[in-house]
Amino acid sequence: MGPTEDDLTAQVVADFHRRPMALDDALEERIWRVLENVRVRWPNIDEDALRASNRKQAMVPQGATVLEPIGTAPGLIVPPPDGENGPSVVVLPGPPRELQPMWTNALETPELQAILGRATEYELRMLRLFGIPESEIAETLRAARADGIDIDALEITTCLRRGEVEVVTRYEPSQADVYAAFEETVRARHAGTLFSDDGSVVDEQVADALRAAGETIATAESCTGGLVAARLTDLPGSSAYVRGGIVAYDNAVKTDVAGVDPALIAAHGAVSEEVAAALAAGAISRLGADVGVGITGIAGPDGGTEEKPVGLVWFAVAHRDGRTVTRDVTIPGGRADIRDRATTVALHLVRRLLLGTGGIPGR
Amino acid sequence: MGPTEDDLTAQVVADFHRRPMALDDALEERIWRVLENVRVRWPNIDEDALRASNRKQAMVPQGATVLEPIGTAPGLIVPPPDGENGPSVVVLPGPPRELQPMWTNALETPELQAILGRATEYELRMLRLFGIPESEIAETLRAARADGIDIDALEITTCLRRGEVEVVTRYEPSQADVYAAFEETVRARHAGTLFSDDGSVVDEQVADALRAAGETIATAESCTGGLVAARLTDLPGSSAYVRGGIVAYDNAVKTDVAGVDPALIAAHGAVSEEVAAALAAGAISRLGADVGVGITGIAGPDGGTEEKPVGLVWFAVAHRDGRTVTRDVTIPGGRADIRDRATTVALHLVRRLLLGTGGIPGR
Repeated sequence: MGPTEDDLTAQVVADFHRRPMALDDALEERIWRVLENVRVRWPNIDEDALRASNRKQAMVPQGATVLEPIGTAPGLIVPPPDGENGPSVVVLPGPPRELQPMWTNALETPELQAILGRATEYELRMLRLFGIPESEIAETLRAARADGIDIDALEITTCLRRGEVEVVTRYEPSQADVYAAFEETVRARHAGTLFSDDGSVVDEQVADALRAAGETIATAESCTGGLVAARLTDLPGSSAYVRGGIVAYDNAVKTDVAGVDPALIAAHGAVSEEVAAALAAGAISRLGADVGVGITGIAGPDGGTEEKPVGLVWFAVAHRDGRTVTRDVTIPGGRADIRDRATTVALHLVRRLLLGTGGIPGR
Repeated sequence: MGPTEDDLTAQVVADFHRRPMALDDALEERIWRVLENVRVRWPNIDEDALRASNRKQAMVPQGATVLEPIGTAPGLIVPPPDGENGPSVVVLPGPPRELQPMWTNALETPELQAILGRATEYELRMLRLFGIPESEIAETLRAARADGIDIDALEITTCLRRGEVEVVTRYEPSQADVYAAFEETVRARHAGTLFSDDGSVVDEQVADALRAAGETIATAESCTGGLVAARLTDLPGSSAYVRGGIVAYDNAVKTDVAGVDPALIAAHGAVSEEVAAALAAGAISRLGADVGVGITGIAGPDGGTEEKPVGLVWFAVAHRDGRTVTRDVTIPGGRADIRDRATTVALHLVRRLLLGTGGIPGR
């Protein structure tokens, strides 16, 4: 959100609670000091423009609690009009790196503490499954009900996110037994695809497994174009177990850099189980890793054939000790969907190789 | 959105316009045929669960226009209660690959055509700039006004998105001269940072420049971990000009795979202009490309020093013919911000090397 929209939000909330906007001099001065950094980086910046922008950010509704800016926009807690009951409105800046820490700060203010003190506390649990359609979870809810579990006492939300089904449940602490029975039903019916019951995502599970084993990983990707390496290195500290990767987009890179035998490509095509396995082996040997990931597929929109349609992706995950998992998946959707989903499948196959269970349905 | 939320939306809109929900038999049958694909992929699926889910999707408010499902959820155009004036509500499924084509279909229905026929048509223009703070644009708006340009006749929105400033302007066709004068003011004041005036993004400009020159590109990335290669290969047809990349996360991969002289790392550190340049050169020589991109930096949260803080990233873009651009940037924010912004800077430096102008502020 630009300053224009931020200003507008504060103004609208101020109007709603009938509180005139006023300049907070101290806040203006504090924001100005934050802007020092901008002035150093852009020495030719128009200082009047910056001052005007600064002043707008420092206009706040009278009687509002100001949350210190993380960037240059303050947060606001705007109480209802004096003498009235009604909701307080919390206004926070939109960029996640400002929003998230400021929300944490907001929770510690006496204003929000007072509101939260009146609220019921809920338990929150999340189960994650990979490789089943959402309708299977809907059926599990019906089965749980048929088994006499009072699932109406739970607030259950299911969400299909990047190919994974998330089952989020909120419940009052008194309903812990009901939740336990529900979770047991999910475990019994979906043992093969349930991969997380503690909020962890597959990325963290792969990272933890590599750290625990003291092993390293490397990739040789074609259709995903670097997305798997990017995702593996997304976590802080990943340099401890990620050696790196090869983006083998052109066939010459597959052979010259990743070490794939050209005869394999000639015999089976670039998108094949054999080439995926050779890419995984190349990732291990060329980058000196313990675990190698090979991916080759057709992300489209062109390049599909009847035998090898757009969306077909071959995966191989290999360990230096000889263990190997290979798998093909035909992923629906457009180019971005196919690349993104393939990245998730790759991580689940790595998880399967390292942990031996869950997250990928059997054949 | 899961089926639960979709159903809820249709129900809420039906209640709002006082239209009871009814099963559309023909729609149910059409969705069932779409689900054939799911049934083939998961032969053990619970067919009753799928039927029940299907039937829910086929419940629609009476009198609503049904838009054919792209996935399994239909769209709806729900008119106001019979005999009343009021807004029609268009309900579309959330996933972008269903939403976008269905919106195109919705626009062609007689219901929406009738509404759109009563609307004013607006012109829409977008300018994109890179390397300036948003406050500079706010000042340009003030300058335009001071020059007598009636910018209140234009609806101007500025947005900072992934480090780029977007200036989006909507105006009635009769105000074309006012817009032309405004755009001229932006061009005059921001010649060095304006890089797009036709809606194109830097990714497309780089792709077009490579195609036009018949040249290829390759990457050797450290801190961005494959994000630059992933972004270059995000566009359909990128296999025509992307050779591939090396994710040189570990220093041994920088030397053994990307061909960086270990003496450079010993003398200058892995995060240095010299190593960035050697990575770019390695991308060209090892992957057989015309243009090489080298990136090395400190994405954090650990690994920063006083001399080389978290956020410091060195870039080099080199051409086989000897032209080279190098640049260091210290990027604020967290690990994800740093990696993402570095990817954008890299693309702008490639653009600068290929096109010679704009998009990166001068030193």
